[in-house]
Amino acid sequence: MKLYELAMTPSARRVNIFLNELGIELARESLNLRAGDNLSDEFKAISINGRIPVLELDDGQTLCESMAICRYFDELNPAEHSLFGNTPLEKAQVEMWQRICELQGLFVAFQAFRNITKIYQDRERCVEAWGEESRQRVIEFLPTLEKQLSKQPYVAGEHFSVADITAYVMMSFIKNLEITPSDEQPHIKAWLNKMEQRPSIIAVNG
Amino acid sequence: MKLYELAMTPSARRVNIFLNELGIELARESLNLRAGDNLSDEFKAISINGRIPVLELDDGQTLCESMAICRYFDELNPAEHSLFGNTPLEKAQVEMWQRICELQGLFVAFQAFRNITKIYQDRERCVEAWGEESRQRVIEFLPTLEKQLSKQPYVAGEHFSVADITAYVMMSFIKNLEITPSDEQPHIKAWLNKMEQRPSIIAVNG
Repeated sequence: MKLYELAMTPSARRVNIFLNELGIELARESLNLRAGDNLSDEFKAISINGRIPVLELDDGQTLCESMAICRYFDELNPAEHSLFGNTPLEKAQVEMWQRICELQGLFVAFQAFRNITKIYQDRERCVEAWGEESRQRVIEFLPTLEKQLSKQPYVAGEHFSVADITAYVMMSFIKNLEITPSDEQPHIKAWLNKMEQRPSIIAVNG
Repeated sequence: MKLYELAMTPSARRVNIFLNELGIELARESLNLRAGDNLSDEFKAISINGRIPVLELDDGQTLCESMAICRYFDELNPAEHSLFGNTPLEKAQVEMWQRICELQGLFVAFQAFRNITKIYQDRERCVEAWGEESRQRVIEFLPTLEKQLSKQPYVAGEHFSVADITAYVMMSFIKNLEITPSDEQPHIKAWLNKMEQRPSIIAVNG
């Protein structure tokens, strides 16, 4: 198996924190997105969504989408406590919070960053006003996360899960948008400190 | 248990096709989004993401996010062939294709529709240029779906799955954006015909 990635990107960080939690080592090939490595015909042949990370299996089949790659390893390596949850209710709560943090946080932040900085304007059309609107929506999402962390030790409840991984990667990425937790968000700050003591996260932060 | 929804919305259609496939009947309460039923304090207390559908459990706990609600019922009702896939590889492929159809199709179409029509401008800021850009991105996504359906009978492979549900709801929703499969997309057209013969889908189309 081989993982095609660019380690500094949020999507690679999500997969790598997950793999670190499970103690899985993989062969890796690093791509340079700015140079357009992901735009080559060779890469397009292996990446269905045209994005990284991509996991290439030994038989040549490939898997895209960070959460699909994480779920594949979760299924192959049953743990006492799965990072996707154990019971039906827990699995649903992890999925719910993972998606809330992704759809109202991380992906909104991606749209803000790409449309404000125009970092990929050589390959995509940018709408700066949408970037600014998206940045504002990320700020407006943080109270939802603060409220949840005021009631639960981890994002999806009693246990560390993929929802914490998504939320952590989101919180570290939005520094690029000059967004940090406010003084009214002490539970996010405390949880961030706790996250930054996990070996899986220390390893990706270098 | 009770499902809060608005049956005509794409998110409710996803959940309802899924429930129909499993043969599950639920108590329902219909909300009027245009009238702002989902903006009340009462609704905000039960919906974590402020959206519908919301599943209220018998103990008062609630689950949001369509895919989390579907996964909850999938876990509670083991089927011979799960709509989320059976083997680790199948589960990963279903998750990958469900997400590709959602993140590059359905959700992009939502942004197009909301920003072009400004249907919710009483409660959200709209950026029409982003709506037009998003509409174009949906059109540019369809060849990915066509290519996959030229190789596989269903979106994620050999079996009907949640990826088909998401893709079908997306294809029916984008008619609102005046997007339909082109003559270069015969496999999407044939698959749509096949989908519209499924009882689970006939039931939601009324």
